[in-house]
Order: sequence, then structure tokens, then C-alpha cells
Amino acid sequence: MVRFALFGAGRIGKMHAANIASIDGCALTYVYDVYEVAGRQVADLHGAKYTSSVDDIMTDPSVDAVLIASPTETHVDLIEQSIAAGKPILCEKPIDLDIARVNACLHNIGDKAGMVQLGFNRRFDPNNSALRKAVEAGEIGKLEKIVITSRDPAPPPSAYIAKSGGMFRDMMIHDFDLMRFLSADEPVEVTAVGSVLVDEEFARYDDVDTAMVMIRLSSGALCHINCSRRAIYGHDQRVEVFGSEGMLISNNQTETTVSRYSKTLSDAREPLLHFFTERYGKAYRNQVESFVNSLAESRSFNPNFEDGRNALIIADAAEESLRTQRTVTIKY
Amino acid sequence: MVRFALFGAGRIGKMHAANIASIDGCALTYVYDVYEVAGRQVADLHGAKYTSSVDDIMTDPSVDAVLIASPTETHVDLIEQSIAAGKPILCEKPIDLDIARVNACLHNIGDKAGMVQLGFNRRFDPNNSALRKAVEAGEIGKLEKIVITSRDPAPPPSAYIAKSGGMFRDMMIHDFDLMRFLSADEPVEVTAVGSVLVDEEFARYDDVDTAMVMIRLSSGALCHINCSRRAIYGHDQRVEVFGSEGMLISNNQTETTVSRYSKTLSDAREPLLHFFTERYGKAYRNQVESFVNSLAESRSFNPNFEDGRNALIIADAAEESLRTQRTVTIKY
Amino acid sequence: MVRFALFGAGRIGKMHAANIASIDGCALTYVYDVYEVAGRQVADLHGAKYTSSVDDIMTDPSVDAVLIASPTETHVDLIEQSIAAGKPILCEKPIDLDIARVNACLHNIGDKAGMVQLGFNRRFDPNNSALRKAVEAGEIGKLEKIVITSRDPAPPPSAYIAKSGGMFRDMMIHDFDLMRFLSADEPVEVTAVGSVLVDEEFARYDDVDTAMVMIRLSSGALCHINCSRRAIYGHDQRVEVFGSEGMLISNNQTETTVSRYSKTLSDAREPLLHFFTERYGKAYRNQVESFVNSLAESRSFNPNFEDGRNALIIADAAEESLRTQRTVTIKY
Amino acid sequence: MVRFALFGAGRIGKMHAANIASIDGCALTYVYDVYEVAGRQVADLHGAKYTSSVDDIMTDPSVDAVLIASPTETHVDLIEQSIAAGKPILCEKPIDLDIARVNACLHNIGDKAGMVQLGFNRRFDPNNSALRKAVEAGEIGKLEKIVITSRDPAPPPSAYIAKSGGMFRDMMIHDFDLMRFLSADEPVEVTAVGSVLVDEEFARYDDVDTAMVMIRLSSGALCHINCSRRAIYGHDQRVEVFGSEGMLISNNQTETTVSRYSKTLSDAREPLLHFFTERYGKAYRNQVESFVNSLAESRSFNPNFEDGRNALIIADAAEESLRTQRTVTIKY
Repeated sequence: MVRFALFGAGRIGKMHAANIASIDGCALTYVYDVYEVAGRQVADLHGAKYTSSVDDIMTDPSVDAVLIASPTETHVDLIEQSIAAGKPILCEKPIDLDIARVNACLHNIGDKAGMVQLGFNRRFDPNNSALRKAVEAGEIGKLEKIVITSRDPAPPPSAYIAKSGGMFRDMMIHDFDLMRFLSADEPVEVTAVGSVLVDEEFARYDDVDTAMVMIRLSSGALCHINCSRRAIYGHDQRVEVFGSEGMLISNNQTETTVSRYSKTLSDAREPLLHFFTERYGKAYRNQVESFVNSLAESRSFNPNFEDGRNALIIADAAEESLRTQRTVTIKY
Repeated sequence: MVRFALFGAGRIGKMHAANIASIDGCALTYVYDVYEVAGRQVADLHGAKYTSSVDDIMTDPSVDAVLIASPTETHVDLIEQSIAAGKPILCEKPIDLDIARVNACLHNIGDKAGMVQLGFNRRFDPNNSALRKAVEAGEIGKLEKIVITSRDPAPPPSAYIAKSGGMFRDMMIHDFDLMRFLSADEPVEVTAVGSVLVDEEFARYDDVDTAMVMIRLSSGALCHINCSRRAIYGHDQRVEVFGSEGMLISNNQTETTVSRYSKTLSDAREPLLHFFTERYGKAYRNQVESFVNSLAESRSFNPNFEDGRNALIIADAAEESLRTQRTVTIKY
Repeated sequence: MVRFALFGAGRIGKMHAANIASIDGCALTYVYDVYEVAGRQVADLHGAKYTSSVDDIMTDPSVDAVLIASPTETHVDLIEQSIAAGKPILCEKPIDLDIARVNACLHNIGDKAGMVQLGFNRRFDPNNSALRKAVEAGEIGKLEKIVITSRDPAPPPSAYIAKSGGMFRDMMIHDFDLMRFLSADEPVEVTAVGSVLVDEEFARYDDVDTAMVMIRLSSGALCHINCSRRAIYGHDQRVEVFGSEGMLISNNQTETTVSRYSKTLSDAREPLLHFFTERYGKAYRNQVESFVNSLAESRSFNPNFEDGRNALIIADAAEESLRTQRTVTIKY
Repeated sequence: MVRFALFGAGRIGKMHAANIASIDGCALTYVYDVYEVAGRQVADLHGAKYTSSVDDIMTDPSVDAVLIASPTETHVDLIEQSIAAGKPILCEKPIDLDIARVNACLHNIGDKAGMVQLGFNRRFDPNNSALRKAVEAGEIGKLEKIVITSRDPAPPPSAYIAKSGGMFRDMMIHDFDLMRFLSADEPVEVTAVGSVLVDEEFARYDDVDTAMVMIRLSSGALCHINCSRRAIYGHDQRVEVFGSEGMLISNNQTETTVSRYSKTLSDAREPLLHFFTERYGKAYRNQVESFVNSLAESRSFNPNFEDGRNALIIADAAEESLRTQRTVTIKY
């Protein structure tokens, strides 16, 4: 039985809490949040203790592991403290928005970095898992192209934009990791373009809301990722892997499989699942199970700290390419 | 080069004329129609001669074959005259609405019945051909079920209804033949139900506009056919063959493969192809090519007079079942 | 909080137990099963008490409701005892295989029949709910046809066949109820055909494994249902509602939405979800939530005892039609 | 009646000949080819005259228009001669592989450039037409993204590669034009990446077989195009237009709409249409009809010489970007 302390009782924290509480082999012991009302509510719902003291958690031997879902700027400190306390960590992405801070953290924790599983939940999405398995099994022969479409249903509020780190570090970072996961290869160079077409608020923060990148992998395979901060028909999440022997597409998802026929259309489905918590609900759950199983079986975590760092380096390179209008070489 | 005389310059006749004129290896020589304006128009369009005299055609040695697309009640006479004149025949379905007349015709023409190819064009539809080929190749193992959905986009005018012969002889007869074609088996018994739900005009003629039948084949396989005289979303033509090793579905067709995504729907296609001339355009064309090739290669016609007679017998049995509310045994 | 006692710790009982344990607003208190090992295992898993005494449950005031998932022949007694004990009931279908016993039960419980919700879980399937809502909202105009395809992935073991009550009472009874639910109409007459094509074991018990029925509803609308005891590609569960203004289809479901392209095929999906517990997992869960909510809000249960009785009467009529090869009138 | 002279009796020439011969309102008068056997065969098939003399055609007043489907290097001369002879031209793309020669040609023909319709047949594909109509009608709101996937089924022979002008001028030029057609906007800058993954033969000619580009349009909308010289599952031709109010996708096409279900898969379609002559058969035909109708109604040709020149300029810029690894500004 893995007894978790959860940091952060916001939207994602709540979902993690529900998963921990209902997955066999783990339990929720503590909920930490600087906002007592929010923290206590989540704790009460699942019969856990609320605390506003990090130390309470770090010093309690009954806490077997921590799940960090608090704001990004707290991640590094909590990782370092958890490692010092000997508690394995499932940490939401990103490690930090600043690669210098990530590097410093890595310096501090050294080879204890292996105690961190990073929250790139999309690796645990059944569709993406199926794609990876097929690529690995050689089903499409030699991998030649990856095309990822990743569009949020609606832009976040201004306050979120201000602190997000920008399109590449906040949103496309998931897709950079997915590209690495699917290809088991590393990027060599990246080129990015972007526009503000959805919401002028993004321009205020020198950010973009519509972006495309092209990446060359070390094998010569090419990857295209395109992101938008708004897709009126729902959360558009498609992935295509193309190779010498075939292609696999991870198609979008709807709540039901009902299709409609009328005077004006045929075989129409409902709009796509809207929220990432619906679209990736299973992925979030599988991610916790994987963490728990890795602990139980003393296996390495996957994805790990290095995966989080590498994805951020790619994001930084994409950002630089957008600014300089040049192809940027990626060096980890 | 097969030189055709065409009987009938109505909607279907026009389509046949265009096919004959554009298919390699055949040509349109005569167009016959009791309405001179209609007949002459089709003849002129394709550089053929118009005639209102059946004899002109039967006595002209330059006519290699006839295509009968004139009203149903003329079919038997034209078949008998053409056979007497030694001219092979591609005859629109049905041979006649009255099985007694069909039997008399068969008596008259005897083993010359082999000179007739019957116009069950759906056997030549690429989808249906693919289904038959797969069944024949054992792709779905032992055939256990056939399900046919066959719905016209809109009900015909009252004058048509009056002379149509009813749902089973006019419309479902295509599906009875298709069932025989796909299964290469014969029906043992049929049960039918029907309602007037679309247009009260059908009730005036003691007909139905919405019908379902179930048929047991000699192998024990079961077949369901459902027909409607109106489907607001277009010409609904689906076929399913189910067996011990799998299933094949012949899905509906649209003009383009464009799909739409909006606030209210996803992956919506346009309404189905509306007219049978669009949906079965290739089938009508392939049918003429098959006739011409059979002639050239001295092969038997397929489907033939017997196929036309058998389908009518099934339709009569379905009609009887509808009237008597009993399962009716089919005897050819 | 609704505290449940569960009767039956078999395959379905286990699923009900997990649902009760994880749904907000209810809890699992007792598990009853004649096999102590099975019962105790389920009880332990969810922190409930095991008992082999029906009385323990009926006399315990802390039991707010019972869920009956024990063998069919025990349903009537448990219903009567639960009603006598004043405990509302969620009872797996069917009430009983013998309509005489169902009628006697109804006679015994009188207007307390309203305390029973019947386990036609498919009404709670999101696809079927969407269909009913659309029909009710008039989206397809006047309902004219229902077509239900219902095929199990693989035939049950011989012991199950022996006691199942036959294709119509065991399997198609779900579809009879679904037809009533979708149409909000009642059947007038039914015709059935059937064959043994899958497994000769069915013939031993005078049962069929492949069947089709046609039903006329009181509105004149027609319904076709076709069932098979084996579909090699998974649990084939499709529903089509067709009306004057359009059509809706509830399509099949797969675990992922990945499609495959290769030298021999394109856009291929994986086989359908195999087990009914996967395909109808949400339906089973929603069903319990509906029961709990109806209790909380003092609303009538839906579907109820009468729905269970009516579906059985339709099944009996279908069975009679199969035996007599005649259309059979349905009288509740 | 528009009487055509056809230059070129190769694979594409043959298709044009068949279209001209069967479209109402036009006829094939001459076929020119330097290879007499090939030219005479096509001429004979359609009852046209064969000639090896360009002058024969240019001086014959019975020739109303020319269709140029001869090798690329002959296009400019034939355009200039046809204009001098006063004959309108439907010219296969590209005008020439060398922009200097195209510019010289434009200088020579001046405002007579309007006599040329350029053979970007994909504008006439029913799918692409539907997309353009929807974009124009505002169906997807403000256009924000275009994503084009364009993959040939198999690489061309080495001799073709040697003279093709490379991926961008030979293959992606269609997609550059399609982007301009769909957006009714102009590109501002382009970035390209490419690899040799399919056939080392491409490396011999300093060409690539796998390429991706990103283009920024003047509106800020972004376009991604990805091409491959081989897709084992057929001719992969997809287009996506994405905007503030929705998305349209032009999906791939198969010969039939049959889907297959088996132990290992469900809803599988056959491989995509393999050859461009099948996939774009209607587009080629519609293109000739548009040309003939524009002549008949004295409307401007669309696409025209300028469209051909602009697409080549984009291709040159993409090529330059590939070489320099920089984003290249496009100036017509």
C-alpha cells in the first residue's frame, strides 16, 4: 500500500486525489494546499488529513510518496525536500519554466533524480500507448514522420497566460515529450512559427496562441506539431506516425459513438470531448498506477526527471527559433 | 462492336444510352420510344436513329443486341420478339409484374431464355461485387446473416405507385436478387410486415411504404431486408454479410469525403448521394460492359431470365405473407 | 447515504459491488452468496460483511436497499422478502423465466411493485440515452423504424445454455426492453425466426443461437432485432432509430480510437470491446446512480417491475412465433 | 464546340484525350507527339489526326484551343507559339522549372498571359472545391491554419527524379497552389526541412523524398505541408482548414466503401486509391470543362499563368530554405 501526500488541491490536484483514493494499492493520507478551504475540502472528501505544513508531510514516516500538483514555481523546492526526506515523487510537468533552475535542481539532487516520475500523462493515454507499442514492434517499419495536432478547446484566462511560460513551455511541451516517447529518438533541430489569432491577450505577454514547429530527429525522421489555444469543436488531440510500412493515427474522441443523419448531413458525431480531464482521464489514472507499480516492483520511473528537462530544452529552442526566425540546434 | 437498339428513352433509358455511347466496344444505333420527342432527343444526342417501329429494329441485321428500358408491361413482348429476331437482350427488371405472364413467356422462349440478361444492376455495384467476392473466398467463414437496408430518398408520384406492382415487386425485388447473389443460396421461406407511414397515397393502392422481411435460406442462414420509400438524408443503401469468421458492411456513399467540425458536431459528412443514378451509376455502366463482354466471349449472361423469375416469386411470397400474416414457403 | 446489501457475488455481482463501493452517496454493507469463498472475497475487497443468511439482511435496519444479482430462480423470493422488509430493490433481469411466477409475484406484492427497479442497464448506456433523448425531442420526426443488432462475442458454456431460458428470454429480452424504451411505444405483434449455426449445443436444449424478429408497434412503426451468440470481432451492439426527419445510429465501440493503414487496408480499428462489462460498464454504473438518486428524490424507479414483466411477455411471444411460424399478437 | 489539339500522348496526355473526347462541347482534332507510335495510337482511339508538326496545328484555323501535356521543357515554347497563333491554352503544370524562363515568357507574351489556364487540377477536385466554398462562405470563420498531407504511393523512376526539378517544384508545387486557392491569401515566408528516407536515388540528385514546410500567410494564418515520395497504403491526399468557427477535413478516398470486421480488426477499409489518375480523375475532367466553359462564356481562366508563376516562386523559396536552414521571405 502506497500512502500518498498530495501537494495542491486545485483542478488537477482534485483529479489526482480521486485517482489515488480509488486505485487499488494506494491511499491518500495528506492533502497540502496554501488555501485551507480548498485543501481541507479535498482531504475530507477522501478521508485524508489536511495540512499547511510541508514539514508535517516530510517528517511523517507513514507517507510513502508525494504527488506534486502545486503551482510550477514550487516544484523544484518540493522535489528537493521530498528527496531529502527519502520520499519518491510523482511531479506534474513542468519541473520549472527556467532551465537554469532545473539544472541547479539536478545538480542538487544528483543521482537521486531517479526518485522522480514526471507527469507527462499523455504517455499513459491508451491511444498513445498503442502507437508506441506499434512503432516499437515495427508495425510501420522505419519511422519517417510524426504529425501531432494539439488544440485546446478554449484559451485560458489572462492570469494563466501571464505565468504560463508561453505556448512552447506550457502547452507544446506535452507534444515534445510525446514525440520523444513515440520515436524513442532525440531531436536535432527545431524551427517554429507562431501567430496571435485567437486572443490579443497573448500578444500582451509576448506569447502566441497559434503555432507550428518542425523538428528533425537524429534518424532523419521529421516531426510536425501544431498547437492552437482554441478549437471550437473541442479538445483536438490527434497523432500520426508514418513509416515505410504503414501509418497509425490516434483519432479524436467523443463521449458517445452516436452518429446523426438529417436533410443536411450524414454520419455526424457530437463535438469532441471538451476538457483534458475527460480526454486524458484514463491517462492520469494509468500514470498513478504506473508510479505505484514501479515502486512496488522497484522499477525505474518513466518518464523521469531527464525527460522533463529534455522537453523543456526543446521548448526553449522552439521559443528561440520563433524569436530569431532561424532553425535552432538542440543540445541537452 | 455491339450495335444496340434501345427501347425506352425515359430517365433510365437516357442513362443506358449514355453508357452505350461511351463504352468501348459498343455503339447506339436505334432509339425507340412511343413518344417521338423524347426518343428523337436521345437518338440525336448520341448520333443514333430514332424509330417508332419495333419491326424496323427487329428486321435490321445491323442491330446486334437490344436493351429494353421501356415500361414493364412491354417487356415480355419485346423479349419474345427480340428472341424471334435472334437478338440478345439486356432487359430492365422486372420481366413482368405477373408471374403467370413470366411463366408463359418462359414457355414460349424455352431454352432461348439464355439470350436474356436481366437488369439487376446492383450485382455490378463495386461494393456488392466486393462483398460477393469476399463471401465466395470464405473471408467471413460460413455465411450466417445478411442484413439489407434499402431506402429511397423520396416517394414516387402517385401515377408511379398505381402501376408499380407494390413495394415487394417494384423495390425490394432488387434486394431479393442481391440476397441470392451474395449468398449463392436459395430462400426457403419469407415473412413480411409493412406499414403506411410515409404517404397515404400508398394506402389508396393497397400498398405499403415501410416494410421489413425475414427470409430463411436453405443453409439455415437468415436474411433481413428493410425498405422505406423515403429517407430524408438520401439514398440509404447498406448491406451487411455476417459469418463465422467476420463481417463485411457495404456502407453508404457521399459525393465528397469532406468532414465538418463545429460547435455542435464533429466529423459530419454531407447527405448521402440522392438519386439511384448517382449511387448506382457505375453499376449501370458495369452491367452493360458485362453484357457486351459476355457476348464477345460467348459466356452465359448473369443475372439471367431465371434470376428475374425467381426474384419475382420471392416478391409474390412476401406479398402473400404481408396479407396473411404467416410465414410463406417459397417454391420456384 | 444508501447502504446496500448485495445478493450474488458472481461476475455481475462483483461489478455491482465495485460500483456501489465507488459511487458517491452509497456504500456496500453486506454481500450474500451461497458460496462463502466467493461472497467473502467480494465483501472483504470493499470492507463489507459477508453473510449466508437472507434474514440477517432483511432484519438489519442499517440496510437501506438491496441489489439482487443472484441466480434468476432466486429473484422472485428475494423481491418478495425485500418488499416485506421494506427495502427497495435493484434487481437484475429477468424477474423470472416463467411468466406465471412473475404474475404470482405481482399478485403478492401488489402496488409495492413500485419498490423494484429492474436491471435493464442498457437504458443507462450513454449511447442509448442519447438516442432516447433525440427521439423524445423530435429530432428524427415521427419514429418509423428501429433496427437493433445484438451479438455476443462468444457462446456461453453448456451449463448456462441449459438454464438460460433461451435466446429470447435470456438475450433478446434486453433488446425488447430497449425497443420499448426508445419508442415509448408498445408492441402489437411479433414474428421470429431462428437457426442453430454457431454451436450444436443450443439444439440440444431446443434453443437457437442465431435469431431475427420483426415487431409492429402500436404506432405502425416497425422494429427489427437480430441476435447471434457469437461475433468473432467482439460484442456487436448497434441500434438505429429512423424517422421522417432523420436517423440516429448508436455505433460500436473500441478501446482506443487508433486507426491503422498498411499495404492491405486503411483506417482499420481494433476489434470491438469484447465483454459486456466493458461495453456496458458505464451503463451499469449509471444504473446504480439512477437508483440511488430516485431513492434520494423519492422519484419512481425506471425501468420498473412492469417493464420486466412486459419484456418477458414479448420474449414469450417471440418464442411462440418461432415454434408456430406465425405472427403472434402481444397481450400484456 | 471547342476543337482541341493535344500536345503529348504520354500517361497524362492519354487521360486528357479521353476527357476531351467524352465531354460535351469539345472534341479532339489533333494529337501531337514526337513519338509517332504513341501519338498515332491516342489519335486513332479518338478519331483525331496525328501530327509531328507543331506548325500544322498552329496554322490550322479549325483548332480552337491547345492542351499542352508534353514534357516540361517544351511548355514555354508551345505557350508562346500558341499565343502567337491566337489559340487559348490549357497547360500542364509547371510552366517551367526555371523561374528566369518563366519570367522571360511572361515578358514575351505580356497581357496575352490571360490566354493560359494552368493545369493545377486539384482546384477542381470536388473535395477541394467544397473546402474553398466553405472557407469563402465563412463556415469556419477566420481561417487560421491549413494542413496538407500529400504523399505519393511510390517513388518515380530514377530518370524522372533526375529531371523533376526536385520535391518542391515537382510535387509540393500542387500543394502551394492549393494553399493559395483555399486561403485566397498570399504567403509571406516559408521554412522547409527534408530528408532522404525512401530511396537513396533522391540523394544522387541532391533532392529529398520526405519534406515538410511551414508557411506564414499575410493574414497571419499558418500553413503546414508534408510530402513523401512513398506511402505504402496508397495516394495519401488530405487537407485540413481550421478557423475560429470550425474545421473541415478533406479525407482520403477508397474505391469502395466496404468495411471489414474480423478477429483482429474492425471497420477496416481497403487501401487508398493508388494512382493520381484515379484519385484526381474527376478533377482532371472538371478542369477541362472549366476551360471550355470559360471560353464559351468569355470568362477569365482560373488558375492562370500568374498562379503558375507564383507557385514556382514559393517552391524556389522552399528550396532555398532547405539549403540555408533559414526562413525565406517570398517575393513574387
